[in-house]
Amino acid sequence: MTLDDLDTPFLIADLDIVERNIRRSQQHLDELGLASRPHIKTHKLPFIAWKQIEAGAVGVTCQKLGEAEVMVDAGIREVFISYNIVGRPKLERLAGLCAQAKIFAAADSGHVIQGYAAMAREFGVSLGVFLEADTGGKRAGVQSPAAARPLARQILKAPGLTFEGVFTYPTGPPTQSFFEGVAAALQTDGIVCPRFSGGGSLCFWELDRTPICTEHRAGTNVYCDRNLVTQAGYRWENCALEVLTTVVSRPTAGRAVLDLGTKAMTSDPNPQGGFHHIRSHPEAVFEKLSEEHGHLDVSRCASPPALEDRLRVIPNHACGATNLHDLVALHRGGRVERILPISARGKIR
Amino acid sequence: MTLDDLDTPFLIADLDIVERNIRRSQQHLDELGLASRPHIKTHKLPFIAWKQIEAGAVGVTCQKLGEAEVMVDAGIREVFISYNIVGRPKLERLAGLCAQAKIFAAADSGHVIQGYAAMAREFGVSLGVFLEADTGGKRAGVQSPAAARPLARQILKAPGLTFEGVFTYPTGPPTQSFFEGVAAALQTDGIVCPRFSGGGSLCFWELDRTPICTEHRAGTNVYCDRNLVTQAGYRWENCALEVLTTVVSRPTAGRAVLDLGTKAMTSDPNPQGGFHHIRSHPEAVFEKLSEEHGHLDVSRCASPPALEDRLRVIPNHACGATNLHDLVALHRGGRVERILPISARGKIR
Repeated sequence: MTLDDLDTPFLIADLDIVERNIRRSQQHLDELGLASRPHIKTHKLPFIAWKQIEAGAVGVTCQKLGEAEVMVDAGIREVFISYNIVGRPKLERLAGLCAQAKIFAAADSGHVIQGYAAMAREFGVSLGVFLEADTGGKRAGVQSPAAARPLARQILKAPGLTFEGVFTYPTGPPTQSFFEGVAAALQTDGIVCPRFSGGGSLCFWELDRTPICTEHRAGTNVYCDRNLVTQAGYRWENCALEVLTTVVSRPTAGRAVLDLGTKAMTSDPNPQGGFHHIRSHPEAVFEKLSEEHGHLDVSRCASPPALEDRLRVIPNHACGATNLHDLVALHRGGRVERILPISARGKIR
Repeated sequence: MTLDDLDTPFLIADLDIVERNIRRSQQHLDELGLASRPHIKTHKLPFIAWKQIEAGAVGVTCQKLGEAEVMVDAGIREVFISYNIVGRPKLERLAGLCAQAKIFAAADSGHVIQGYAAMAREFGVSLGVFLEADTGGKRAGVQSPAAARPLARQILKAPGLTFEGVFTYPTGPPTQSFFEGVAAALQTDGIVCPRFSGGGSLCFWELDRTPICTEHRAGTNVYCDRNLVTQAGYRWENCALEVLTTVVSRPTAGRAVLDLGTKAMTSDPNPQGGFHHIRSHPEAVFEKLSEEHGHLDVSRCASPPALEDRLRVIPNHACGATNLHDLVALHRGGRVERILPISARGKIR
């Protein structure tokens, strides 16, 4: 079976490229002495998570409890949920996971840690806790190294909780000094911070600038996408994920309409502007995306695509595209090897 | 069961508001003498499609064949797929639908009509065909009224095909004269155009400017959203669809982090800028959306939300938000009446 046998739009990923990206990432982190704890948000597939672990990753990172459940059910035994888990329904599910595997979760406040401590006590389970640090990302996380100190103490005092380290997203210029500050603040209490965990794919080739880190969580670079190519020195040949599409209308000489829009590709923007990339027609420009139509300007193409031609589109943002599809076809150079349900898709709770 | 019993994030829609929106839309179209053929892309639910039909709609509109299959399986017997259906796999499925219900599909070229004609002949079914006109939307559709003339003739000549009219999206200032041109062009061949079909929710209260139209296809205004409020005179009280969310972090006095980001709300932009709206905290501003975090600036809120508080967020774009969720909770003023699978979600082919 080849890609020609798939009706469109269809999410496709080239396994040869995926495996090369995994090897290359692992090798880079090995060279830097960093443990790899890849983020599954990009592929949402146990099949690829296992490839990452077999290549040397120490475990995987998830953003949502429901994603972690899919990974643990698939036999993965070390999962970091890099998210504050709050509220009774989620804490009960978290306890269930802790009974099955080695689970780490995030905290950035005493309130979140209290919830974990109460859960560990009630259900008799143990949970590893990573403190989140806001080193420039401006979302969750403690705002100063000093703020980490009482939280680390609180974790260490709670039966059932272990203190696993500090993490941030994304790794950036302020990360090194922030993490050094955390190390010093904890040292005041005689606490050694076991791990310094960075994250991101944009920064992946600059991790030597953050030598305090002991591990890295990258998501997007397993598939790569237009945003990584235009912003971070990745190349089109690193891009494994595409959406297979058909030209459904050629209303003018310069316009082709594709059977994919924001509902198959997202509206996720590119900081340099524009949307998506078509390897076979690099001069084609997405002028606009409707929900179910891609408006493609083909006026600069040497041989513009015809009605019913099939194209392969590299999305701006691989993680967002994956999140829209129920199935992905894994192929090698066009030969379909597996069609898998994206089993962690939609696990938003 | 109330909304308090749902874990977050959870897509919710207030049925009282939905039913009021349906009544109000139908009444407006009745007053204008327009048939209603609502687009199900916004709710993707047979449950609400049936409410629209029971309120007076002549049938429903779908964008994808897979959506039409869900609607026909739910007993809806007149479905317009306002999309060019091309390629053998889809034409075979289309034939199956034609055997079950009254189906209309779109065409904007002789090639597409040839496909329909061959399908009707091979499978012995009949299909209604609407010609698509590009009256300013700049995606698919014939580019001039004159171009509609040979296509209408081609449809009328093909056994099994019926000519159902001309349609556009969105209805706008050029629509009236374009449709008048189509009527005149067809008249040359003695063909009376049976329907002039407009579409859109932004233009919904200005349809008196396009008196040639005989019917209208509106999608978004069944739920309404921030984009309709800021652009088209809809009001917050028309907004039925929200995403229920929890504050998972309060890292600074001015920032609250919500457990929803682009993967629960989309990146679909608002032309006036910004994202989403929270009725209970109208001063709260989304500074940024990560994939799974909403970065909320609450510095202007009289009583900013606390950690673990639950909020209800009206999305920029209702249709995009629906497309991300497997389930929707239908409630009346907070009391949950049904939790339904969004059965036409993910039907991208």
